[in-house]
Amino acid sequence: MKRKEFRKLISVDKAREIINSLQVIPGKESLALENVHGNILAEDIVTEINVPPFPRAIMDGYAVRAENTYACSETEPVRLRRVGDLPAGSDAKFTVLAGETVEIATGAPIPEGADSVVMVEYSSEENGTVSIYRPVAVGENIMKAGSDILKGERVLRAGRKLGTREIGVLSSVGKKEVPILKLQVGIISTGDELVRPGEKLAYGKVYDANSYTLYAGVQECGAFPLLYGIIPDNETVMKKALETAVSECALILTSGSTSSGAGDVMYRLIDEIGETLAHGINIKPGKPVVIGIIKDVPIIGLPGNPTSTLMIFNEFVAPLLRKVLGAETGLKKVENGIMGTAFRSEGRQQLLPVGLIRGRVYPADRGSGAITSLSEADGFIEIPPSTEFIEAGTPVEVTLFGEVEKPDLLIAGGFCPSLDLLENLSGLRFRTFYTGSSGGFSAIAANIADIAGVNMPSIYPGGQAGILYNIPTIENMKLSGAVLVKGYRREVGLLIRQNTPISGLSDLPGKRLINRNLGSGTRTLLDLKIAELAGKKGISKKDLTDSIPGYTSGAKSEVAICEAVASGKADAGVGIRNCAGKSGLKFIKFADEEYDFLIRKEVLETPEVRHFLKIFNSDEFASKLQAGIHVYEKTGEMISFE
Amino acid sequence: MKRKEFRKLISVDKAREIINSLQVIPGKESLALENVHGNILAEDIVTEINVPPFPRAIMDGYAVRAENTYACSETEPVRLRRVGDLPAGSDAKFTVLAGETVEIATGAPIPEGADSVVMVEYSSEENGTVSIYRPVAVGENIMKAGSDILKGERVLRAGRKLGTREIGVLSSVGKKEVPILKLQVGIISTGDELVRPGEKLAYGKVYDANSYTLYAGVQECGAFPLLYGIIPDNETVMKKALETAVSECALILTSGSTSSGAGDVMYRLIDEIGETLAHGINIKPGKPVVIGIIKDVPIIGLPGNPTSTLMIFNEFVAPLLRKVLGAETGLKKVENGIMGTAFRSEGRQQLLPVGLIRGRVYPADRGSGAITSLSEADGFIEIPPSTEFIEAGTPVEVTLFGEVEKPDLLIAGGFCPSLDLLENLSGLRFRTFYTGSSGGFSAIAANIADIAGVNMPSIYPGGQAGILYNIPTIENMKLSGAVLVKGYRREVGLLIRQNTPISGLSDLPGKRLINRNLGSGTRTLLDLKIAELAGKKGISKKDLTDSIPGYTSGAKSEVAICEAVASGKADAGVGIRNCAGKSGLKFIKFADEEYDFLIRKEVLETPEVRHFLKIFNSDEFASKLQAGIHVYEKTGEMISFE
Repeated sequence: MKRKEFRKLISVDKAREIINSLQVIPGKESLALENVHGNILAEDIVTEINVPPFPRAIMDGYAVRAENTYACSETEPVRLRRVGDLPAGSDAKFTVLAGETVEIATGAPIPEGADSVVMVEYSSEENGTVSIYRPVAVGENIMKAGSDILKGERVLRAGRKLGTREIGVLSSVGKKEVPILKLQVGIISTGDELVRPGEKLAYGKVYDANSYTLYAGVQECGAFPLLYGIIPDNETVMKKALETAVSECALILTSGSTSSGAGDVMYRLIDEIGETLAHGINIKPGKPVVIGIIKDVPIIGLPGNPTSTLMIFNEFVAPLLRKVLGAETGLKKVENGIMGTAFRSEGRQQLLPVGLIRGRVYPADRGSGAITSLSEADGFIEIPPSTEFIEAGTPVEVTLFGEVEKPDLLIAGGFCPSLDLLENLSGLRFRTFYTGSSGGFSAIAANIADIAGVNMPSIYPGGQAGILYNIPTIENMKLSGAVLVKGYRREVGLLIRQNTPISGLSDLPGKRLINRNLGSGTRTLLDLKIAELAGKKGISKKDLTDSIPGYTSGAKSEVAICEAVASGKADAGVGIRNCAGKSGLKFIKFADEEYDFLIRKEVLETPEVRHFLKIFNSDEFASKLQAGIHVYEKTGEMISFE
Repeated sequence: MKRKEFRKLISVDKAREIINSLQVIPGKESLALENVHGNILAEDIVTEINVPPFPRAIMDGYAVRAENTYACSETEPVRLRRVGDLPAGSDAKFTVLAGETVEIATGAPIPEGADSVVMVEYSSEENGTVSIYRPVAVGENIMKAGSDILKGERVLRAGRKLGTREIGVLSSVGKKEVPILKLQVGIISTGDELVRPGEKLAYGKVYDANSYTLYAGVQECGAFPLLYGIIPDNETVMKKALETAVSECALILTSGSTSSGAGDVMYRLIDEIGETLAHGINIKPGKPVVIGIIKDVPIIGLPGNPTSTLMIFNEFVAPLLRKVLGAETGLKKVENGIMGTAFRSEGRQQLLPVGLIRGRVYPADRGSGAITSLSEADGFIEIPPSTEFIEAGTPVEVTLFGEVEKPDLLIAGGFCPSLDLLENLSGLRFRTFYTGSSGGFSAIAANIADIAGVNMPSIYPGGQAGILYNIPTIENMKLSGAVLVKGYRREVGLLIRQNTPISGLSDLPGKRLINRNLGSGTRTLLDLKIAELAGKKGISKKDLTDSIPGYTSGAKSEVAICEAVASGKADAGVGIRNCAGKSGLKFIKFADEEYDFLIRKEVLETPEVRHFLKIFNSDEFASKLQAGIHVYEKTGEMISFE
């Protein structure tokens, strides 16, 4: 394996300059009217007809010569002879002479001789004689030919994005085939580790996400994506793919294979068959970006990591696409917000994925390689190298990940299936981070989460028997900015395979346990119960836990616990009844714990939190709770901390 | 023709109640990942794999046992034996024992025995021996299996709108076929006067716009439109169409045929084969609306007029579609603005089409039957019956016509082809109303337009020879809130067919003239020139104009003038040189007029107006002006009025 060092990284401004100078030349295509929504008009539309094409009635009634009606009144109607009938769409031709009228429907052409329409409300008809009870003026209730759109007028300008309105105008002037800009963007994913979604995932492989996110991103900009699939890290194959793409597209986007690591062939290839304009932007995560031109077609190589790719796409590529398609404004989709929590930067230029909830911005960075930092982020902010610390309350500009549906509530804390139920019943969009209860308390303390689901047990401070939930932790942390809403009780127990000879905690010694991670309420509860058991047995807690293999293990979720037990990797796990049922495991209860909601006071009166609490306190929610979860007398009680 | 009276009109609130109670039940469909953008997820997505599926390297380097590196340093590296090489995507399996290492690429699976990765930067390799210069901790540079997305986790909830991000998540978990909600909405246009765009327009016919605007509107909401085309006003044919649509769709939208006018069969048919829930909403233009149910499928009949249809669609139908597709918020697409001008209402409940430019709202109502009130409107406001007058400065809420691209500048005044040139060169989006110069002054006075193009001549106040442009009008109107930017000169003359024996104004008597409308600068200029000519001839101006047939005619635009002359309907018209050239007419110049820009002071410093002026003053603009239009020494001069 040969390695090649990165060239000198270019600045962000230089990168924008290079990208703006790229000659991306869209083609034209004619599309049927019903398919043009969201596309960009390629040519001015000059109408070849008047709209309306003839003077038309805008009311149902009678076409008359206005002068015939001047003398009439409600008590002394004028009587006119009906000489014809013009329903809308009729091509019958009449001439209205003095003393005559033609019945006419809205939209029908005004007959020769007539100059106005009397509304049907001010008329009556008997045996072909029409009585008119109100005079009309010349031109009344008539729309002149061309008074709406005039033949020869430019009705839409090239470059206009075609929405509902524009489609209305195009159809009104009879335009069935519409010339639109076709900016074909080729998309290539590279990497021997990639597999297409839907295919079997062999060892060492991951699914290709970039092809599809870039596809959707290109579509959102009004351009036309073309997928070339996954090309392996092989120079010959890659070269062929690039040459095909170059012959078919106005711009090529690749992802992966652009760093200096082993097997990264992209930048070498661009050097070989084209010209490299830049390799590496001095912004995290822009280091692997490569910009080049092959046979006059620009090519931009993006990072392999999905979140990085989408950030670089939205920061540099989407504005280019929008500009090429004629947009002058709104090149970047941005929204202003306020940092909800402080953030310590690395002291270098970086793009930080962030969530944006009701104007509050918080970091959503799970580190390189994670796709969920994407699903948990609504966009990103740019942090200059001079900024080492962003204080809470700082206004920031968020570049959105395209058209994003932002969440209504940010919820952290311990896993509970009832949160899904609450989300379903409320219709609110939750962004949920299962951080464990400890993480929930911290997220409230840091002003990140709106609500934390917590189930953290403590022994009574005075040494009294029994267990207190959440309140001691809140008091220890001095969480004065929050209220605790008492939730529901959950049955907690051991999860074992059906035939495992375990009937309680005292059977655990010698069995392989899969425990929850530190910071989880369930793990803390097991700790307390094990301490209690050790006390009863008259041995130290440490001696007891040492006798249980795997006691110090730490699975991040109940799902992981169930899988470990079901697959035989462990003999027992710890969790709530509902999880056992879903995995076909046996459940041996050892406690009823309390799962509560800690809510930041600041958001308590927002419509979202009010709606959340309304649903939480509803009978429907109580009746649909999963097996082993119950409301009780304290449900809904609110405890405020000063 | 039978007529049926409207039933009792229902209130807007009642209409919303009825529409909200409609049972619209979307179907499900499975779409390939690349086609799901903008659709609504029909089922929860629970992943069947861990992401990443294995512990993976997040850096290029060497997989090691961390404990082997604890003692190393830059000066005293530890030496390990390289036992293998793991490029990304490799399925090779190695076991790393103490003293061993495997070269590993970003994304490759960590081999058995290794627990960390040393970055390539802190290593060197020679003959299979790797020197490590920095210790690593257990887990360093490794992403654990499932640490991003855990098997069994719900990654996306049913009802989620699928954007770029969501598509990224779906592909990461390998989901190729995605269950989405398919809300099929049938669209029927009715009216014997309608013709499909692209077909020949016979006498009495107009193009069908509603099919296509509704099609696009339904698409924007994330539902699936299905066009049934134009159905004639014939009960048998219509009944058959409705029955087909009912069997294929979850909701039917029709337009036209719902008023009580002649030939309007829709409401009678719904009564006959289904149930009518309401006929007529007490809001202009909701009177023709009919709501019913046929075989459990709701049907909503909309007005025939395109602007009315789109307003009723956005007010009542789009929120229903969004709600059925799971949205809880954003049911109506609204934006807040401030009335830029006063508006006198009819004292009844109404929806008023409005334009929205930089937060300023102005009425864009051209009356019933006009499609351009649509192309000139960005949405509409609801005016309650109690409001008779809306003052300028009143905050209003605008319901948008879907995803609209709003204009940058509102320009009124006299027609000039140079405005198209300015728009093209500046890239700004103009909304232009050719109101004539008089209309331009009024639009500035009323604070509606940002800029007016004006060419209004006056004789010198003192009786001095010659003509002054625009300034006397501004002074008469006391337009203190505006500045006049001197524009360019335009050659004005008579437009005649090539062989017409006219060589100047004095040849006009006895020839059929097509004049411009009152309020047009060009007409006023002709008036002054004719008065001058009459003076020279020693006759009264009235005698001279009486001798010119058609002198009092008033064509709304130069395009109409050219057409009247080219087609022989008139012998001479009046206009600028450029228009003559385009129509193959002969041009006989009688004056050089001055076309200037009147700009409201309030907007003078906005980026849009600054950019407009920059382009206007550019050499490129001057060099690209059409034949007969020239910049001159005054171009760009700015005159302020106090």
